Amino acid sequence: MDHKQPKPGKLLANINSPSDLKKLKPIQLQDVCDELRQYIIDMVSVNGGHFGASLGVVELTTALHYVYDTPKDLLVWDVGHQAYGHKILTGRRDQFHTNRVYGGLSGFPKRSESEYDTFGVGHSSTSISAALGMAVARDLDKSDKKVVAVIGDGAMTAGLAFEAMNNAGAMNSDILVILNDNNMSIDPNVGALKEYLADITTSKTFNKMRDDIYDMLGHFKSAGEKMRKVASRLEKAMTAALTPGSLFRALGFKYYGPTDGHDVDGLRGILEDLKDVKGPKLLHIVTVKGKGFAPAEREQTKWHASSSPFDKITGKSLVAPKPTASKSAPKYQDVFGEALVELASNDERIVSMTPAMPSGSSLLPMMNTFPERAFDVGIAEQHAVTFAAGLAAEGKKPFCAIYSSFLQRGYDQLVHDVAIQNLPVVFCIDRAGLVGADGPTHHGAYDISFMRAIPNMVISSPLNEQDLRDMMFTASNYDEASWAIRYPRGRATGMQVQEGFKSIEIGKGVQLREGEDVVILSFGPIGKYAIEAAEKLSGEGIEIGHYDMRFAKPLDVDLVDEVCRKYEHIITLEDGSQLGGFGSAVAEYIAEKPDRPTLKIMGIPDRIIEHGTQEELHEEIGIGVVGIIHSVKQKTHLKV
Amino acid sequence: MDHKQPKPGKLLANINSPSDLKKLKPIQLQDVCDELRQYIIDMVSVNGGHFGASLGVVELTTALHYVYDTPKDLLVWDVGHQAYGHKILTGRRDQFHTNRVYGGLSGFPKRSESEYDTFGVGHSSTSISAALGMAVARDLDKSDKKVVAVIGDGAMTAGLAFEAMNNAGAMNSDILVILNDNNMSIDPNVGALKEYLADITTSKTFNKMRDDIYDMLGHFKSAGEKMRKVASRLEKAMTAALTPGSLFRALGFKYYGPTDGHDVDGLRGILEDLKDVKGPKLLHIVTVKGKGFAPAEREQTKWHASSSPFDKITGKSLVAPKPTASKSAPKYQDVFGEALVELASNDERIVSMTPAMPSGSSLLPMMNTFPERAFDVGIAEQHAVTFAAGLAAEGKKPFCAIYSSFLQRGYDQLVHDVAIQNLPVVFCIDRAGLVGADGPTHHGAYDISFMRAIPNMVISSPLNEQDLRDMMFTASNYDEASWAIRYPRGRATGMQVQEGFKSIEIGKGVQLREGEDVVILSFGPIGKYAIEAAEKLSGEGIEIGHYDMRFAKPLDVDLVDEVCRKYEHIITLEDGSQLGGFGSAVAEYIAEKPDRPTLKIMGIPDRIIEHGTQEELHEEIGIGVVGIIHSVKQKTHLKV
Repeated sequence: MDHKQPKPGKLLANINSPSDLKKLKPIQLQDVCDELRQYIIDMVSVNGGHFGASLGVVELTTALHYVYDTPKDLLVWDVGHQAYGHKILTGRRDQFHTNRVYGGLSGFPKRSESEYDTFGVGHSSTSISAALGMAVARDLDKSDKKVVAVIGDGAMTAGLAFEAMNNAGAMNSDILVILNDNNMSIDPNVGALKEYLADITTSKTFNKMRDDIYDMLGHFKSAGEKMRKVASRLEKAMTAALTPGSLFRALGFKYYGPTDGHDVDGLRGILEDLKDVKGPKLLHIVTVKGKGFAPAEREQTKWHASSSPFDKITGKSLVAPKPTASKSAPKYQDVFGEALVELASNDERIVSMTPAMPSGSSLLPMMNTFPERAFDVGIAEQHAVTFAAGLAAEGKKPFCAIYSSFLQRGYDQLVHDVAIQNLPVVFCIDRAGLVGADGPTHHGAYDISFMRAIPNMVISSPLNEQDLRDMMFTASNYDEASWAIRYPRGRATGMQVQEGFKSIEIGKGVQLREGEDVVILSFGPIGKYAIEAAEKLSGEGIEIGHYDMRFAKPLDVDLVDEVCRKYEHIITLEDGSQLGGFGSAVAEYIAEKPDRPTLKIMGIPDRIIEHGTQEELHEEIGIGVVGIIHSVKQKTHLKV
Repeated sequence: MDHKQPKPGKLLANINSPSDLKKLKPIQLQDVCDELRQYIIDMVSVNGGHFGASLGVVELTTALHYVYDTPKDLLVWDVGHQAYGHKILTGRRDQFHTNRVYGGLSGFPKRSESEYDTFGVGHSSTSISAALGMAVARDLDKSDKKVVAVIGDGAMTAGLAFEAMNNAGAMNSDILVILNDNNMSIDPNVGALKEYLADITTSKTFNKMRDDIYDMLGHFKSAGEKMRKVASRLEKAMTAALTPGSLFRALGFKYYGPTDGHDVDGLRGILEDLKDVKGPKLLHIVTVKGKGFAPAEREQTKWHASSSPFDKITGKSLVAPKPTASKSAPKYQDVFGEALVELASNDERIVSMTPAMPSGSSLLPMMNTFPERAFDVGIAEQHAVTFAAGLAAEGKKPFCAIYSSFLQRGYDQLVHDVAIQNLPVVFCIDRAGLVGADGPTHHGAYDISFMRAIPNMVISSPLNEQDLRDMMFTASNYDEASWAIRYPRGRATGMQVQEGFKSIEIGKGVQLREGEDVVILSFGPIGKYAIEAAEKLSGEGIEIGHYDMRFAKPLDVDLVDEVCRKYEHIITLEDGSQLGGFGSAVAEYIAEKPDRPTLKIMGIPDRIIEHGTQEELHEEIGIGVVGIIHSVKQKTHLKV
C-alpha cells in the first residue's frame, strides 16, 4: 500500500495549529469542516484506517478547537479513533498519511506525539476519569484551564465511565462531558442506556409533555394568588423533571441537549455558553457515524475502519483480491465463530457472550443461529465475565469471546467469580499477541502472564485452525476448571481442516521435529516461525528439535523432562510477554533440577511495543524467523 | 480466642432449614428476627467477625427465606459479609461458631459450603451480573425459579453493577434486585448516587411536588373537556416522572420503594407481591447498619467487623491489651498513613486516593490533614487508577492506596492508563499476600505476577516499617515510571523508626546474613520468617545466606550474579503466587546461565488458599519458619 498525502482544501492548507483556525470567522467554519471531512476521506480511501467515528465528529472537533484555548485547555478523547480531525487540525496534517504505519503516527491520541493529546487512549471509557483527575490538578494549581471529555454513547455503558460520573458529580468539579451519541459502538450499541438515549433524542414523550405543561401552567396563572404561586413553583420543578437527562442529573451533572452534532455554528454557540456554566455538566450531541460518506453512513459497522484503498464515491474496494494461500486462509476468529456454531448445535449447554465485539470476535454466526444463546452485553468486560460465571453456576457452558487486552478489564472477575469458585467457563481470547496497527493499547501481550498465576485455569493456544477447533471441542467437554484458548489477530494457515472434532490430550505437547543440541518449545500460532526457521537451518545442516507445546498450563512436564535429557539448549517461543508467561513456566519448572539445559525465553520484551504490521513488530523484537535463526546459531556457536 | 456456640432462642433452635421457617405464621417472623439478631450479637461478641451488615439485613433475610422457595429459587448476596443470618437459617447455625476460623465456615457465601450459597463472593458488586446469568440459564431451561440479587448502596456505585443493570434492563430478564440502602460501605458511602438515594429516601422534593400536582390536577379537571384530557394524560406521565427511581427506570428497571427494611411483615408482603411482577425490577429498602446493637448503630465504620470479644450491651472490648512487642508494633497501613502525611507536607505535588477504604487503608490522616488532596472515590477501583493517571498527566504525584485483591479490578487501567503512558503513579498496595480470616477472595496472591509483566513499573516490598517509609520517600521523588509498594495486612516489626526519610537505591537488595551452600532471597516482610529460620539453623550449626531483595522489578541482577557464584542452592521466598512472581523473575534471569545453582521457589502454591490466621496459612503452605527450615535441610542433605 502506498501511503500518499492527499491535497488539503485551501482553508485547511493554512491551518497548522488551532491558532490558525481561530483566525477564521465563524461563518467559515462549515467550509473548514467540509475540507476536513474531504481530507479524511481522501486519506483513508488511499491509506486505510479508522473512519466512521472521525467523520462523525468533524464539526465537534472544529468547534472545540475554535472555542477552547487548546492545548492549555485540556481536551480528552475517549477511545480515540475519532481523533483524526483533531490530529489534522493540531499540526499533524502533513504526517497524517503515516497514520497507523510502522514508525508513523498512532491511530489514537498519544501523549508523546503531541501536546494536544492530553491522554493516551485506545480502550474505551477512560476519558471522564482522566478528565476529573486533570480538573482536580487544575483546581489545586488554581489555574483557569477548561477540561473537556468527549465520550461516545457506547463507551458510556462501561462501568468505568459510570464510576467516574458518580465521583465527578459528587465532587462538583468543573468539567464538561460531551456525549457523542451516534447509537454505535463498533457494532450497534446495546443496553438499556441506548434505549434511554433514543427516547431522549426522538423526544416525542418529552416534547409532548412539555408542551402540555406549559399550556396548562398558562391557564393556571390566571387563577387566584395561591394557585399562581403553586404554578410558579411547579413550573420550575417540572422543567427540571421533564427535561431529558434525568439519568445524568441523578449523577450530579447538569444536562444540556440533545443537539445536532453536525451544526458547527450551533455547537460553537453552545460551547461558548457552557464556558460560563460551572460544575459538572454534560452536553448531549447527536451525530451520524460516517457522516458525509454515503457508504459509511449506510453500513456503519463495516465502515468503522478500512484496511485497504477504496473508491471514495462508491466505497468499492480498489484492491483486486489476491488468491494467495495466506489470503485465502480463514481468520482465526472466523474459525472460532464457525466452530462455536457446530459445537452449540450438538451441545445445548453451550452459550456465548461478547463485550460489544460481535463482528470483531465473529460471534455473529452464533448470534444468528442461536439468538437466545448468544449475547452482546455491550462495552462491559467485567460484566461479561461475571455473567458467564453466573451461567456456569447454573450448569451452562459459557464460551466468553473476548480480546486479550480487553480481558484485562475483567481480570478481577476472572479471579474472583470464575477461578475461586472453579466454574468451567471457556475463554476464547482473540487478538492475543501483537495486534499490528492498533498498537500498544491493543497488543495482547500480558494474558499468559496474568492468567498463569490464577489457579483452576487451563491455558492453551493452537498451532493452527485444526487445533483451535479441537481445543474448543475438548474444552466444551471439560468441566474440571476454566479454560482459556488464545489466538491472534489475522489469518490461520489455510490448511485442510477435518470434518467434525477430536479430543486432544490436556497438558500434552506435540513433537514436530527431532534434532540435536537445540530445541524450540513454541506456544501458539507463532510456532509457524519456528517451523520455517528449523527448515532453513536444516538447509544449512543445523538440525534442531521443535515441539508445539499447546498448553502453557498445565505444562507438559514429561515432555520438558525428556527435552532436558536430550538437548543442551532450550529456546521457548511465544507471542506474549517474556516475563511470567509460557517461557517463565518452563524456567520455573526446570529451576530446581541440578543438571539442566540453558533456557532462552523468546517473547515480547519488557517495553511498550508500538504499532506496525505484526510481521514488522515480530522482526523488530527478534521473535520472527530471522531472530529465531540468530538465537539458535548463538547456541550452536556457544557449543562449538 | 474461644469459639463458643451461643444458645439460640426457642424459635431459632428449631429452624434447621428454610422449610422449618416456612412452618411459622407470618406473625411469628418478628420473633424469629429478634432471636436471629440476638444470636448474631451473642456469636460475634464472643468470636468476632463481620457484624453491622448482617444485623442490618436480619428482617430482609428472614422475609426472603420465608417467601422464596430456596434453594430452588436463587438468592445472590453481594459482597456477602451480610450473609450471617442467611447461613444461620440455612442449616449452619450449629457450625456458625467456627465462622472465619481455620477449617471452619467461611465469612462469605461459598458454593462448596452449601447449596443455599448460589454464588461465592467477597468483593462487591458482582450480584446483578451473576443473577442475570442465572436468570438466562433459568429461561433456557424453561424453569420457573426466581432469581434475587441483594446489593448495598455502596456496591451499587461500582462499574460492574452498572454494566449489569444496563444489560439486564435491556434483556428484560425476570430478576429482582434488592437495593439495601444503609448509606454505608465499610466507610460512609460517597458519590453522586448516594446523594440521589438520600434525596429519594428523605423524599421532601418528591412528596411536595407530588402533592402540588395532585392539587393542581384536581383544580384542572373542573375545566373544559379538552383540559380534562390533558390533565388525565399528564397525571399518568407525571406519576411516572415524579416517582423516585428515575435513574433505575432509565436503565430499564421497574422501581419499588423506598420501604422500611426493618419491617419484616411489610417486606414479606412486598416480596409476595413482586413475585407476580415480571421483568427486571428493583426494590429499594432502607436499613440501618448494625441495627439492634446500639454501639454499632452509632459507630458504623468501627463496628463493620470485630476481631475480638466485646461486652454485648456496651460494646466494650473484653480483651485486656497485651503489651507484647508485636501487638504494640504499628500496622503497616498506619505506617503508610502517617508517612504519607509527612511526605505530603513537604511536597505539594502529592495527592492520594482510595476506592472506598479510607479507614482500612489508613488514608484518613491524609484526608483530615489535606482534605483537598485526598479522595475517597467510592467502590470504584477502575476509576481510582485512571483518576490517578489523570492527575499524574497534569504533573501531580498520586499515591493510590488500594488493596492487592481490589487492584485486580483496576488491572486494565494499570496497563492502559498508567504503564503505556509511563505516568509516575505510586501504588501503595495493602493486604498483599495472604490476608487471614477474609480468605480466598481477599488474599493478595497475584499482584506480583500480574504487575511484573507490565513495562514501566517498579515493584518493591519493604522488610519492615523503616523500609516502607524510605520506599515511599524514594518513590515520591521518582518520576521515571510508576512504582508499586506492596505490604501485608497486620503489624510491622515494632522496630525503632528513624525521623525523616532517606533514599534507597532502586533495584538493589541488601545482605542480611552470609552463609554457605544455601542462600535465601526474600521479598517483603515475609523475610522475617527467613531471619528466624536462619537463626534457628545457625543454632544447629547450619549457616545459610540471606538477602532482602526489596525489588521484584527491577531485579538486582548483580546480587543474583554474585549469589550464583557463591552458593549452590537458591531459595526464593515471597508472600505471593509461586507462578510468575518474584521467584519466577530469578528463575528467568538465571535460566540462560550455563552453570548455576538450583533454585527453589517458595510462595503461595497454585491452588485456592482458604481462610485462617496468616500464620496458620503460611505454615499450611510451607512458607513459614518450619517450612523454610525443612527446605534448607533438604538442600543441605542433598549436598551431603
